[in-house]
Amino acid sequence: MLVLKHIPVRSFNENIAYINKDCTIYKVDNIKSLTRIEIHGGTKPVFAFLQIVDNKMVRPDELGLNTEAFAQMGLPEGSKITLTLTPPAPSLNAVKRKISGNVLSAKDYAAIVNDISENRYSNMDIASFLVAMNSFITPNEILDLTEALRGDKSIDWGSEDIVADYQCMDEIPGNKVDLIITAIVAAYGLPMPKIVSSSSLSGATILDTMKTLANVSIDTRSLKKQVLERRGAIVDAEKIEICEADRIISRVEQQNGLSTLERGVASLLANKLATGITHLLIDIPVGPRARIKNSAEAMHLRKIIEYVGDMLGLYVDVTITDGSEPIGAGVGAALEARDVLKVLKNREDAPDDLREKALFMAGRILEFDPKLRGGQGYLVAKELLKSGKAFDVFDMILKTQGKVESSQLGHLTRDVVAEKDGTVARINTAFISRIVILAGAGQYAGAGVDIFRKSGESVMAGDILYRIYSCNQNDFAFVTSMIENGKNGFDIE
Amino acid sequence: MLVLKHIPVRSFNENIAYINKDCTIYKVDNIKSLTRIEIHGGTKPVFAFLQIVDNKMVRPDELGLNTEAFAQMGLPEGSKITLTLTPPAPSLNAVKRKISGNVLSAKDYAAIVNDISENRYSNMDIASFLVAMNSFITPNEILDLTEALRGDKSIDWGSEDIVADYQCMDEIPGNKVDLIITAIVAAYGLPMPKIVSSSSLSGATILDTMKTLANVSIDTRSLKKQVLERRGAIVDAEKIEICEADRIISRVEQQNGLSTLERGVASLLANKLATGITHLLIDIPVGPRARIKNSAEAMHLRKIIEYVGDMLGLYVDVTITDGSEPIGAGVGAALEARDVLKVLKNREDAPDDLREKALFMAGRILEFDPKLRGGQGYLVAKELLKSGKAFDVFDMILKTQGKVESSQLGHLTRDVVAEKDGTVARINTAFISRIVILAGAGQYAGAGVDIFRKSGESVMAGDILYRIYSCNQNDFAFVTSMIENGKNGFDIE
Repeated sequence: MLVLKHIPVRSFNENIAYINKDCTIYKVDNIKSLTRIEIHGGTKPVFAFLQIVDNKMVRPDELGLNTEAFAQMGLPEGSKITLTLTPPAPSLNAVKRKISGNVLSAKDYAAIVNDISENRYSNMDIASFLVAMNSFITPNEILDLTEALRGDKSIDWGSEDIVADYQCMDEIPGNKVDLIITAIVAAYGLPMPKIVSSSSLSGATILDTMKTLANVSIDTRSLKKQVLERRGAIVDAEKIEICEADRIISRVEQQNGLSTLERGVASLLANKLATGITHLLIDIPVGPRARIKNSAEAMHLRKIIEYVGDMLGLYVDVTITDGSEPIGAGVGAALEARDVLKVLKNREDAPDDLREKALFMAGRILEFDPKLRGGQGYLVAKELLKSGKAFDVFDMILKTQGKVESSQLGHLTRDVVAEKDGTVARINTAFISRIVILAGAGQYAGAGVDIFRKSGESVMAGDILYRIYSCNQNDFAFVTSMIENGKNGFDIE
Repeated sequence: MLVLKHIPVRSFNENIAYINKDCTIYKVDNIKSLTRIEIHGGTKPVFAFLQIVDNKMVRPDELGLNTEAFAQMGLPEGSKITLTLTPPAPSLNAVKRKISGNVLSAKDYAAIVNDISENRYSNMDIASFLVAMNSFITPNEILDLTEALRGDKSIDWGSEDIVADYQCMDEIPGNKVDLIITAIVAAYGLPMPKIVSSSSLSGATILDTMKTLANVSIDTRSLKKQVLERRGAIVDAEKIEICEADRIISRVEQQNGLSTLERGVASLLANKLATGITHLLIDIPVGPRARIKNSAEAMHLRKIIEYVGDMLGLYVDVTITDGSEPIGAGVGAALEARDVLKVLKNREDAPDDLREKALFMAGRILEFDPKLRGGQGYLVAKELLKSGKAFDVFDMILKTQGKVESSQLGHLTRDVVAEKDGTVARINTAFISRIVILAGAGQYAGAGVDIFRKSGESVMAGDILYRIYSCNQNDFAFVTSMIENGKNGFDIE
């Protein structure tokens, strides 16, 4: 018996158990690599990986658990627990078969996903699974994976016939149409619960943008109430307890950039199914610097989405858009929120491309409603925006979730200017995204890039192409040194 | 600037940096997944992964480093350091190309191995690399990987023409011929420095067996002295600073069982090259439950070994042996040491198969010596054993390394008996290995299995097939419950 202790360390994904090198029960001398253990004493066994402590952080008669594992244990500190060494999760045999190029069964995927949700997979194991799927996966396997990931918890929207959502398959800088679309669709009266996963590695997510305007940390109960009343919500997936295993896998994907389109489809559709969506509009941006490079790839992706959606009873409408350039002017949470509000407030300086994209997408979603005549969606959406109704509904959504004070833009700025006269031939979106990340947009809402010029516009030497905002000297030094290397992401011809 | 603190936690493989949630310099709010950082202030940057601490384990103005990272930093506690977010290691792009099925260049492998040795790869990254190589790798890539892994540090044996070693490509239970071979070869006068990596997941390694007889933790300087004087040594690779990257990769392989034969060849030959071996005898056991199942696989493996060995100037002799059954009687460190000593002391109850295998292998190594007439190796080896010279040399090796008191066998024992009369048709080596691990052989030298009967022997119901030794109630409960499931690994017909 060891005594349970909470070591308040957040390790992201892995359960860690800390054991003293002089542990009274368990001989740790020979432990030379990550060792899997099973901890007993709670309602069900908790799986964790051992690390050895050489000081009093945990005493020889204690077992420390990091925050993740301690929460799963569900016992107070001081509880008596026992531990056993545990073999690798049984479903890892299926992963090995996948590595060897085999087709796995629905049962295999269910077992893998179940073991992942019980934290029996190390991050290494998950990475192995992802790479194995990367080399070869059949459409049926994607379907099986989707069903497994979907899990058994889902949100029930009662008597609603249509519960809509919009999802873009890529991160195009500045593309925060989601907030505008939600406002318009909710203003029309269709329920649209946007449940967004956060990602620390991209510049700024929809969630970061929304966070600069309102609280996003809402539980399932409040979410349901809000959507039934206000018809819209934009919230963090963290508190909505669905697709646990998918969240764990996604963190590993984010970390090492292993995501594939196939896995992305399974993840997306599993989440949408679990959130109770009935109708989904999917946006596939295509561009030379986008995730999907050409229309053949986009078509391949569309077919998979349609196949899996149809098999699982989710109505999916896929649209292919131009992903070659940033959308709107601001990139970064506070700047994007500014653009969103400009559009919703019908401000004259609102970015045209952002408004048009939002209207087009919202229009297609409105047409999910059988009562609406074909081709009317765009016009209805435009009317809802122009009349201010979309803004009013959006403002109500913010108030319901809990408005927050708006974020200050970063105090450190740097203007990047055209080095010659000419016309902007193209903007390298991947470059802009890197600038945004380096500027600190992952950490600070006020960091980002404000784009002054778009492709096709003529510029004179010295004109500002974009302005960088940083909140922190470190980030600012980093990002300016990158700019000073000579490139700035704009081709002027 | 943050203040450096040592958090004495051993995490096996990954550098971990602990930062307080209220860190005064770095805003951690938005960190949601494993984040890579670069720590400056020492002689060179140290790479680590961030974990967030919610209590005073590290203060807001401190950065904690686990034992691995702290050692690399090479600074005392209290030193001022800075940190920056760092992008994934550049060579991960090559890993992604490998995942997509491309052939990598020598330069790619060199870059990957270098980044791994600098701890820029997470365990996930390494697992991805391993799985990617698993699906497809060319012989030339194995060669490039071997060269990269070999590194630039190696042991120089001065004027020795032949420095020999023996390596078995599998772990056959009880196969601790290595110790006997080393004794015979050293008694003959050829230098044989056995540098062994430890592995916590297998039952007992050569190293565990040697540890029950002598100290194995010896640095390169003492090793050289000993081998030049005594002609033999059996030591832990841990203190011999070669093939750092390979050691890191091996830990990940051990942990998730991702090892492939191809990677195994690269790892083996890189290590042998770095230890300055000139002549290597490789033993490929073939058997239905062994790693190599049939002679076609063995032949494939032999060709790769010969190709890479020839290209890198290492003389390799490959022999294929029977891997279908355990060798010797004891499995587990103390039991195997007992068998080894029985053979070296020419005891009548020494296991025949262990002695014969050792003589055969030692004989082949002796024939590396051009002075020895072809076919004489076995006879010379036998003479060295019979005369007691091998034992004397072995005893001198033990004394030089530092003899230790012999380990007690586990006090908890269980006899597994034949359930009917008949003949032992076959022994399931994989089953026996699992019993040995469950009995606690990874942790306790005294744990293991003593095998009383071999294939072909006739038994009567109630005869002891093998005896299990455990040192710990937990392990003993585990292993006996496995036996009580009806199977015992012996087929009696």
